[in-house]
Parts: sequence; structure tokens; C-alpha cells
Amino acid sequence: MNGAQSLIRTLVGQGVDTCFMNPGTSEMHFVAALDDVPEMHSVLALFEGVATGAADGYSRIAGRAAATLLHLGPGLGNGLANLHNARRAGSPVLNIVGDHATSHRRFDAQLQSDIETVARNVSTFVRTTETTASLGTDARDALAAAYGPPGSVATLILPADVSWSEGGVVAEPAGKLAMAPGRGSMPATSVMESAAAALRSGERCALFIGGRACSGPMLDAVADLAAATGAELLSETFPARIERGAGRPPVERLGYLAEFAKMRLDGVRHLILLDAKSPVSFFAYPGKPSDLVPDGCTVHAVTGPDEDLTAAVNALSDLIGVVAGCAMRQEVGRPDLPSGPLTSQTVCQALGALLPEGAIVSDEGNTSGLFAPGATAGGPPHDWLTLTGGAIGQGLPVAVGASVAARDRRVIALEADGSALYTIQSWWTMAREGLDVTTIILNNHSYAVLNMELDRVGVGGPGPRAREMLDLGRPDIDFVHLANGLGLHAARAETTERFNDELARSFATPGPSVVEAVVPGLL
Amino acid sequence: MNGAQSLIRTLVGQGVDTCFMNPGTSEMHFVAALDDVPEMHSVLALFEGVATGAADGYSRIAGRAAATLLHLGPGLGNGLANLHNARRAGSPVLNIVGDHATSHRRFDAQLQSDIETVARNVSTFVRTTETTASLGTDARDALAAAYGPPGSVATLILPADVSWSEGGVVAEPAGKLAMAPGRGSMPATSVMESAAAALRSGERCALFIGGRACSGPMLDAVADLAAATGAELLSETFPARIERGAGRPPVERLGYLAEFAKMRLDGVRHLILLDAKSPVSFFAYPGKPSDLVPDGCTVHAVTGPDEDLTAAVNALSDLIGVVAGCAMRQEVGRPDLPSGPLTSQTVCQALGALLPEGAIVSDEGNTSGLFAPGATAGGPPHDWLTLTGGAIGQGLPVAVGASVAARDRRVIALEADGSALYTIQSWWTMAREGLDVTTIILNNHSYAVLNMELDRVGVGGPGPRAREMLDLGRPDIDFVHLANGLGLHAARAETTERFNDELARSFATPGPSVVEAVVPGLL
Repeated sequence: MNGAQSLIRTLVGQGVDTCFMNPGTSEMHFVAALDDVPEMHSVLALFEGVATGAADGYSRIAGRAAATLLHLGPGLGNGLANLHNARRAGSPVLNIVGDHATSHRRFDAQLQSDIETVARNVSTFVRTTETTASLGTDARDALAAAYGPPGSVATLILPADVSWSEGGVVAEPAGKLAMAPGRGSMPATSVMESAAAALRSGERCALFIGGRACSGPMLDAVADLAAATGAELLSETFPARIERGAGRPPVERLGYLAEFAKMRLDGVRHLILLDAKSPVSFFAYPGKPSDLVPDGCTVHAVTGPDEDLTAAVNALSDLIGVVAGCAMRQEVGRPDLPSGPLTSQTVCQALGALLPEGAIVSDEGNTSGLFAPGATAGGPPHDWLTLTGGAIGQGLPVAVGASVAARDRRVIALEADGSALYTIQSWWTMAREGLDVTTIILNNHSYAVLNMELDRVGVGGPGPRAREMLDLGRPDIDFVHLANGLGLHAARAETTERFNDELARSFATPGPSVVEAVVPGLL
Repeated sequence: MNGAQSLIRTLVGQGVDTCFMNPGTSEMHFVAALDDVPEMHSVLALFEGVATGAADGYSRIAGRAAATLLHLGPGLGNGLANLHNARRAGSPVLNIVGDHATSHRRFDAQLQSDIETVARNVSTFVRTTETTASLGTDARDALAAAYGPPGSVATLILPADVSWSEGGVVAEPAGKLAMAPGRGSMPATSVMESAAAALRSGERCALFIGGRACSGPMLDAVADLAAATGAELLSETFPARIERGAGRPPVERLGYLAEFAKMRLDGVRHLILLDAKSPVSFFAYPGKPSDLVPDGCTVHAVTGPDEDLTAAVNALSDLIGVVAGCAMRQEVGRPDLPSGPLTSQTVCQALGALLPEGAIVSDEGNTSGLFAPGATAGGPPHDWLTLTGGAIGQGLPVAVGASVAARDRRVIALEADGSALYTIQSWWTMAREGLDVTTIILNNHSYAVLNMELDRVGVGGPGPRAREMLDLGRPDIDFVHLANGLGLHAARAETTERFNDELARSFATPGPSVVEAVVPGLL
């Protein structure tokens, strides 16, 4: 058994059976070994940012790690932005980065670079495997690190000769790897007691949830806690995955705009963090505070991502005496199918009217997607995946990975024109894999968010050359052509009626398709 | 004057007047300042890899540094692969990477990451500017580092508040910045003397040239040296820029395939390096040596990229007594316009038949482009730019930058289907800027080079799952649609006659266009 075979067998033995890849020469033995271990499912991407974002999306939905296969330092670099998002999402991702053979290093051939230094930007674990015999255990260690808690990115650098040489050894699992919320160290009793005291105090409290608190039984439990105490239930602005829709506890996401977020929190006396960080402004703005916690508000950091959330919420609920199942539930309710001029608002309304049961929304709609959460709140139960790290180009790759993890569900990529262009190659992988992904392109021909940000950072009256740098017209980008070029069916809508029809058709048709909505600029 | 204004004025004052950018919120003050300093020319890219590759291409043709403007760690990550190529090309490139305001760092907001660690992979200079007053001098220091010698990538990290605050100071140039070959330390006399002795010995010698030796007066001088001594004149496999065509000294590039390169060098007793590294295999292969220098051959490392090439070649020529102008010159000669079935060979033949005077070829044709150098050798004088660092996705961005640097010349991007897809967003920038770039897509529906490499790394009879990872069909990619989607005219050729016509039409038409050639797989 060569190294590559031992690596893939080790991964499969530990439950990692999906690898998103863009391989080169140094990874050819890994590729060849795919035929020896049919349990490993390999998905080809045309660009590494697609592979890494897909691994993140897979992990968010499957609740377990995916692997990537990348080609030396430049391949890792191309994947870095979406690994940054995965890091912020707490997704377990294992990168396997091929490298030159160990004997080749000293020649400093063209593709050589310091891979470890790049990897450190996003990884909690970085190791270069030096011998074939240790590859299996190195992979096991990397996976253990990726599972954390918290979930994280681990990077294993694999020299070509380590991969091709005989002498591979499959490593036995050290234990069961899972992303269950009941993992990690126990939070301090004193913090839980002070949080419980605050919740009983009658003062205005908010539970601020993130990470593992936004889905599954933990979401129900925190919602019960909120209902029992009258606390508000808020989530971080960009949760990795939040379960929502009719019958589920409604959670309000804190807004992106610091001005509004600050206003929203005004008057809250106790902010109780459950798998969330204290809220801060996304960017800094001249003369404005970064910290969004209002004056006079006490922050109770009950659990971070490396602590046992289940134990913490149970303990808090016991201290308060919460009755399970008391939480408010979102009522059923959809908007009507819209009519009139096509705007970002009618696009979102149509999405709300037509949202399929069990959908997964990969949300990178930016400014134009602002109305989408409201329009879908009372729709059938669904998952919402957000831009955790702020590195745009996430939406389409995450949709790929989410769909690979849940092939029986409809995935909707809600995309802005500017951000779609970073990783547009995702569409080809959707077509190749026959994924049931609907991409909605909100095309306003601009980096609209930056037009808004120019003003917010204090640039008054930008000149024509500055505005030119935010303008995506001249030439206009035609997403129907782009989708067709990558093998997908696509349609353009310039009226609301046409958009409604095309969206319904996409939802009803197996496989991927694209609906481009031509909408006016900023809101 | 705020920091951003002082930065741009400092750059312009030192001859850096072109910035390729993909900005975000933290760079808005830089963008706003473009209207205050009209001497700075800004070019928008839809993806950072386009911006960094364009800076490299600009630098190779203009012979001076370009700047990039990138958005935090993820933006730098997206640009990393082409910065790797720029590093290997010895191109002076100054990255300006926006970061959060200094006061915002401690909050670890979503987009925060360790930018410096990523930058170190490609940069000889990395600095985070901490005060507005020091921004000008930091930029001057960064530029000085970028100019070297050798030319290199320098990265200046610019916190948003340093950019927006008042108190900027324009730094005066410390000296003239230029990429002239007569810069750097003097090579050791003993090495030059032993090289001269070898050249006079009557034993078989080869001059192995790279970097600055491949163009301008230095190319003439090394060719004279070769002619006077009977030495063979070879260049590194992937020179950043090589001048060629009728009337210029013919230089043979050492082949990519280690087997053939080794064979080519067999019998050479002295290899004299002029701004080149000793030849090594691109990748390592099981049981094959990485070092391509034959047994019994002495390597004379006369100059590296940080040494004075002009002085070295002059000294060598004096020691030998070379008569200037004795070099052989390439004769005029073009292939006839081809006919018959369209293959990669007829595509290259048509390129040779039609190559415009003064063209610049950005070559990322990989396997299918193999015949291009031969077909163009006797064409009108032109520049050839190669994949210096082996990180694919370089060809189209480098074509963008080369064209911005030389708007009066026709640029030809010779592209393979697989590599074009990494940075396809380049086409939009070509359209926006109205660049005279012809892209030839050699579409063989596969990562053909990897099919070859599978065999070379010793994988015999790959299985269907391995082959699937190298196959770009299913769905086929339609480059005409992709080009149209990004605002370019495009045509597909499935016959040689059609290809000839479309290529001629593209050369005769101002602005960018794409000709897709559907060719059979591997050669």
C-alpha cells in the first residue's frame, strides 16, 4: 500500500468520505488511489476557491469534515479566502496540500514556496508529513485537530514521494469524531450563575447566540430559555448555519450596519453569549466605536466555541427552572407572489413565496439580499448559511458543498453580481455533479455595498475615478452567457412576473440552473 | 493631506503610476484619493488574481513596478498564486493590502487575519504601517525593496485609519528606481575567469541565460559571447520575458520535460549561468534525478539575479576578446497559413503566419502550445512571456498588464482551457480598458498535461475515477459564451480555415477578442 492509499483509507475509516479537489502533478498518486478506495467521493473543481468553499459548505450541512486536495502553495493560496470563511464558521476542514518530493526541495524548483507559512493564516494544525509510514497517523492527528472543539481548518502537507512510496499504514481512529454541541470544556460555574441571576433580575436581557446554538436541539433549548425568562433572542450577524422557518423558534440576526446594530442593542442590560463572541462592528469607521455593546450593559460570556454548549445551556435552564417546549414558534406565513417592477425586494418576496420545503439558502446577496430573511421567515423549515468571514466569493462554493452533503434538498445560492464573479467556476461543478442548486443573481451592475461604504467611511462626494472603481457596468456582465458557458441552463428576468416563473421552473427542475434578476442599484 | 493621498503621491513621485485593484471597505480612502492624484492610473479587476498577475505582466513589459490594491488577508490570498509567479519572474510589484483600523484589531472582527504571515510566502519586504506620518517613507522603503536587485514582491499593509487620517507626508525618492541589468553586486572575479577559461578550452560549453539576459542589449551581448566562443545559447525553461523573432539572436529554451532536457544537455562540459539558476526538473519523478546537469559537466554560476549582469558579461567578453555584433541573427521566415484538420499544431502555425509586428505573447498554452515557439521563431520581433512560477492562471492576467504597459502593441494570450478558467475574470478588464488582446483558447476538454504527468509519475493504467479528475468535458466548457458574458467578441473555430480567418480578424480589430480553437487531446 502506498502513502496515498493509506491516507485515503485512513480518512474513510474516520468518516471523511468526500474530497473537493483541484489536483496537479504532485497530487497524481492521490488521484490514482481514488480507484483503489471507492468509498472516497471526489469532486473536481476548476479553481481551488471552489474546492475550499465547498468543503466548508459540506461541513456546515453534513456536520462532519470534508477534505480538500490542493496543489502546492499557489493552490492553497487560491483556496485561502474560503478557508478563512471556514475558519470563522468553525467548520472542520482537512486540507491536503501536495508538495514537491522531499528530495526535490533543495533545488528550489519553480513551484516551490513556503507552504506552511500560508497555511498558518487559516489553520489550527499545520504539519508536513516526512515519511510514508507516518502519513496515516498524521492524517488522524490533523482530523482530530479539525474536529476540535472548536471545528477548524487543519492542513496536512504531503510531499509527492511520501504519497507515492510503499509502506503506508492505515491509522485506526483515536475516537469518534463528531461536531456535537456537547463537546469541549465545562464553562465556569460563576459565569453561569451570574448569567442566571441576570436572567432572573427583571432587567432587560438578550441571549446572543452563534455557532452550535443556532440549530438542532440547542436552538430549541436556548429559545426555551429566552421564553422562560423574557430575554430577547438574537444571533450573531453571520452564523455559519441557522435553522429557521415555520415551527422553529424565530431568531433575529443582529444587523450588519453598526449604526443599526448599536441602536438595536440600546437599553439591553445583560448580553448573554452562547457560542458567540461579543458583537463588534464589521469594519471600523472614523469616529465610531467598534464595540457594539451599549454603555451599562454587562456581557456574560457563558460559552465560547471550545466549551460544552449542551452542559452550559442545561445548567442555565436548571438554575432558572425552564420548562422544555415553552418557546415561541414561528407561524406559517408566506408572502404572496409579487408583481410590479423587478427590484431586490420583489426578488426576495418571490423567494419567500416559492421556497421549497427543506431548502438550504447560501446567502451572499449582500445589499440586494437584505429583504430575503424577512420574506422567508414563515416559510417551510430551511437552513440559512451566511458569509461567516466576510471574504466574498463564498456563496457559490458553499452551495456546491451543501448540495453534495444533502443531495435530496434544493439549495439556493442568493448571489450578488460582484461576489458571484470571484468563484464563478462553481457553476461547472454544479453541472458536472448534477446538483439541485438554484442560483439567483441579483445583478445591479455595481459593487453596491462599496457605494454605501464610501459614504460610511466618511468619503463625501466621491469623484468620478473613485466611482468608476465600484461600477460593474461597462461592459455589463451577462450571467446567462456565463452560466451557459459553464454548462448550466439560465434565464434572465427583467420583470417580476418573469422572475416568478423562472424561479418556480428552476425549483421544479432537477439539476442546477441560474436565474439572473436585473435590479436597480442600492436598495 | 490624508494618508492615502500621501501614499499615492509618493508612488507617483517614484514612477509608479499604475495600480491594479480589487478594493473593499478598508481601501475606500485609497480609492477616493484617486481623484486627488490624477497621475495614478487605476485598473479594476473582478478578482485579485487578475490584479496581481496584471501587475506582474505590466512590470515585465514596462520594466518598472506596478502597484496592487487588495482587501485584507483574503484579498491577498486570492492574489497569491500570481504573486508567486511574479516572485519567480523577478518582477517588482508593490502590494498595498488594506487592513482594519489599528483600533479595531483587538476585536478580531470577521475579516481579521494575520496578513503578514500570508505575505511572507511571496514578499521580500513586509511591513504594516502604524502611523499616517510614516506611510510615505514606508512606501518608499517598500518600493526600494521591490526594485531590489533582484526585482521582487513587496507588501505594505495599510490599516484603514492610517489611510484616512490627516498628517500624510510625501516621501522624496531616495534615488532613481530602475530595472537596468547593470545593477547589483559585482560577481567574483575567480568565477568569471574560470568561465572564460572554459569558453576558451575547446570543450563543449553552453551559456544558460535567464532574467535580464533574455532581452535588450544584454541579449545581444550574450549572443555575441556565444558566437565568438562557439558556445551553445540556451535559456531557462520559463524566462519572464524573452525577446525573439527575425533579426534577433535565436535562443533555444530548455524543454519542460526533464527527460528531454537531460538529453539536450548531455555532453555539455561547461554550463555558464548568466542570471539563471542551474537547471532542475520542474517536478520530481520516481527514480529520476531532479538535477538536470549531466555528469562531468561543470557549472559556472557567473551571475545570479542580485548581481551586476552588465559588468559580468562585459568582463567575460573582454577576457575572451569578443567582437560586438558577431552573433548569429534569426532569419526572416514564417510558416504558410495552414489548412486541413484543426489541431494544436495548425493553431500554432496560423499564429506564426499572422503574428503582428511587435506582438507580446503571454504563453500559457501548456501541452497544446508546444509548437508555438517554433512557428513564430522567424516572425517579426516580439516578446514572449512565460509561466515563471508554474502557478497556472497567469496567462490572461499577465496579458492584461502587458497590454496596459504597451497599449500600442498587440498582446496574444495563448491559453489552455484548464488554465484559462482560473482567472477568466481577466476578460472583463480587457473589455473595460479596451485592450488590444487576442486570446487563443486551445480547448482540448482536459487537463492534458496531467494525463501526461500521470504516466510520468509512474501511475500505469489509471482507473476511471482518476481519469475523471483530469477531464474537463461533461459538461464541455463554451468559451464563446464565457467571453460574451464578460463583454468580449468571440468566435469558435473547428476548422483550420475558420481559425485562420478569426485570428486575422482579431488582429485587425482594435480591442480584445477571443478565438476558441477546438483541438484534439494530447498533441
